[in-house]
Amino acid sequence: MRAPDELRAEVDAYLARLSLAPELGRLEEVVRYALEPGGKRVRPVLCLAVCEAAGGDGERALPAAAALELVHTFSLVHDDLPALDDDDERRGRPTSHVAFGEAAALLAGDALLAEALRLALSYDDPAIARELAGATLGMIGGQYRDVTGDDEDLAEVERLKTGRLLSASVGLGLRVARVPDAEQAPWRAFGDELGLVFQVVDDILDGDGFAERLGAERARRLADSAVARAHARLADVPADASVLRELVDALATRTV
Amino acid sequence: MRAPDELRAEVDAYLARLSLAPELGRLEEVVRYALEPGGKRVRPVLCLAVCEAAGGDGERALPAAAALELVHTFSLVHDDLPALDDDDERRGRPTSHVAFGEAAALLAGDALLAEALRLALSYDDPAIARELAGATLGMIGGQYRDVTGDDEDLAEVERLKTGRLLSASVGLGLRVARVPDAEQAPWRAFGDELGLVFQVVDDILDGDGFAERLGAERARRLADSAVARAHARLADVPADASVLRELVDALATRTV
Repeated sequence: MRAPDELRAEVDAYLARLSLAPELGRLEEVVRYALEPGGKRVRPVLCLAVCEAAGGDGERALPAAAALELVHTFSLVHDDLPALDDDDERRGRPTSHVAFGEAAALLAGDALLAEALRLALSYDDPAIARELAGATLGMIGGQYRDVTGDDEDLAEVERLKTGRLLSASVGLGLRVARVPDAEQAPWRAFGDELGLVFQVVDDILDGDGFAERLGAERARRLADSAVARAHARLADVPADASVLRELVDALATRTV
Repeated sequence: MRAPDELRAEVDAYLARLSLAPELGRLEEVVRYALEPGGKRVRPVLCLAVCEAAGGDGERALPAAAALELVHTFSLVHDDLPALDDDDERRGRPTSHVAFGEAAALLAGDALLAEALRLALSYDDPAIARELAGATLGMIGGQYRDVTGDDEDLAEVERLKTGRLLSASVGLGLRVARVPDAEQAPWRAFGDELGLVFQVVDDILDGDGFAERLGAERARRLADSAVARAHARLADVPADASVLRELVDALATRTV
């Protein structure tokens, strides 16, 4: 089993050599710009780490891991557009629509989503792509609630907007490792707690969401309790979960 | 085998009762607005007609047919946005972003694409969703070339932008009917000619594309020759192709 940093390097290398549909033509440049290194690659690293902890071959999980990162990147490119969050910068660089124009960013987001499903469909087991499509729909529903403010239940919005794809990262890792459905529950319970850790820490760093609603101190306690539950869930997992424990702690203590 | 009008009515009924992901919440209203009747439903009708002509069960092809219409509708909703074609009306109604705002239209387009793949993934055979994802990527590449004008080959732009999804409509019908790959060539050759008929007639009606490039008279001759070739291809198909012949003639002589 490999450490999170090693897994992230492998994800970056895989994404850099990923073949895109030739028919995208010059749109490929926009798609690649959006995918460039700099992100934490939380979802693909989680997918690979789960797959390896469950006894699967991490190499085999790379297309699924990349598919998760493509869905995440599609959502960032569209969310940054003027019609949604209207963000000019991400990770210290101009956002896609600032660099290439709105039309290119819109279509590059569409292409990222379609490529993600194509990657997930490279497996014989259609359950992998099914889980990814379902999580994507949940994420889009969460984003719509967030934009329109038509749902007062912040925990539900964040469960959809962030949690669904993190949960699918665990799910895809399990499926690639061919863990039977009946044995997936403890892993998935861990994924749910990890999603909460990730989101609350994100909100503390950004000063919004849970941090705004609860205050920084209560938000930190919420994160700590989710960290404790994530570790407790890992105790139920019939595997060496040391890399996953490391991942929980890294996400809990991150500063960016 | 059922006539095109009967197939269209069945597609409309299926789309009206289609279950969407509950997590979409109030975004469902925007998705349903974009899917409402009024369109010609060319792609799903073609998919059903091919499936039935090839000896398959049209009922079984409904999810695939609907998936094609959802991909087509996703492309319309995004193309109508101010960042792309900036169209205020479609089929005599306000476009989605005029009716619901840009954020809602953008996310509804994303949801239509994800729902389309989910429908295509309802089959055990992943080749169905693979063909749909590939065609979607080709369509997006064609749209990008069209928007940026970075490809002078009009035939290639239109083959991608319109032809890929029409061709997939034939392909999905064949796959649902379980026509072996080795026997698909004459059907697919028919689909390519039908795509050209559809596009050239579209351009004649809109006064753009081939009609603008070649003049109305030469464009009409191009359409007529594609109609003749489509019929010739159907002669190679080992099936009763009468409904498909009817479809070719309806598309060739349509006035809207």
